[in-house]
Amino acid sequence: MRPWQTLSRTVVFEQKPWISVESRELFLPDGKHIPGWIWLDTPDYIIVTAVDKQGRFLIFEQVKYAADRATLAPVGGYIRPGEDPLEAAKRELLEETGYRADSWEFLGDFITDANRGNGQGYLYLATGAEKVADVNSDDLEEQHQLLLTRDQVAEAVLTGRVRVITWQACLAMALLRLPE
Amino acid sequence: MRPWQTLSRTVVFEQKPWISVESRELFLPDGKHIPGWIWLDTPDYIIVTAVDKQGRFLIFEQVKYAADRATLAPVGGYIRPGEDPLEAAKRELLEETGYRADSWEFLGDFITDANRGNGQGYLYLATGAEKVADVNSDDLEEQHQLLLTRDQVAEAVLTGRVRVITWQACLAMALLRLPE
Repeated sequence: MRPWQTLSRTVVFEQKPWISVESRELFLPDGKHIPGWIWLDTPDYIIVTAVDKQGRFLIFEQVKYAADRATLAPVGGYIRPGEDPLEAAKRELLEETGYRADSWEFLGDFITDANRGNGQGYLYLATGAEKVADVNSDDLEEQHQLLLTRDQVAEAVLTGRVRVITWQACLAMALLRLPE
Repeated sequence: MRPWQTLSRTVVFEQKPWISVESRELFLPDGKHIPGWIWLDTPDYIIVTAVDKQGRFLIFEQVKYAADRATLAPVGGYIRPGEDPLEAAKRELLEETGYRADSWEFLGDFITDANRGNGQGYLYLATGAEKVADVNSDDLEEQHQLLLTRDQVAEAVLTGRVRVITWQACLAMALLRLPE
């Protein structure tokens, strides 16, 4: 199967460092020519499902602007320019929770939108986590940190208490990796 | 926990019906005022993990413009204006595969981007599917339909063969719902 070719790119809106919207001209393997294909460049991000030494999941209850109600959330954040994804994951875990983890498993990297990009997500499962510092977060959101059992997380994932699809992907993968 | 308030919205880029980019002025519960918060309005979408009467998963191998390599994919597509999400899911399953399913389980609705929206996804698990018609798809992508066992799908999900995080969420949830 053959990839699509990008013939040209034009920035139609930009607000650095958060977003650049491009209009692209594409050429498809079957000969189709598509002008005006919208592409979204946004920062790459990490999501971390973290589990402490007692097997409890570090989960936030928080308000997010785009979510329709309060949501449960794993650790997450944007990767800084030039930062390695795993280093970003360790930094965000420490900043948001004050925890460090013994063991880091890479759950995969994924594009957000199959057609328009919108950032690449790097997902991790961190186990053996323990508290080593105070929380030092610059997040805008109100949030409370919870320690949930695997069963509680499975229940949350299956009953719509996680409102964001990228977080849901990370938590569901962690549950598949950590059988009961 | 208190929601954020939207004080104003200004469309800064638009290409109907695919995307509208807004700059919004927000007021946070702690008194912070944020001008220029970017919001993305894109069509809502469905994703369907479909399983036939023999327990085989209907999966595509396809090229998507934003994916870095060929990807496995469940059924998916945009919801039409005014269309019910479940009806969109049934329509897309029929158009893309020629299958109808006996049983439909709603796996949840999720926002795509916790900060900026970018469309709401409605996820389904369809079981007891059988072929009733020819494929009638207007998709631009080259694709092949596969019939995979549960073990093959689990392997694919755990080894990075699904390149899109929204699809990964739907397949991982289906695997959690359909234990071995």
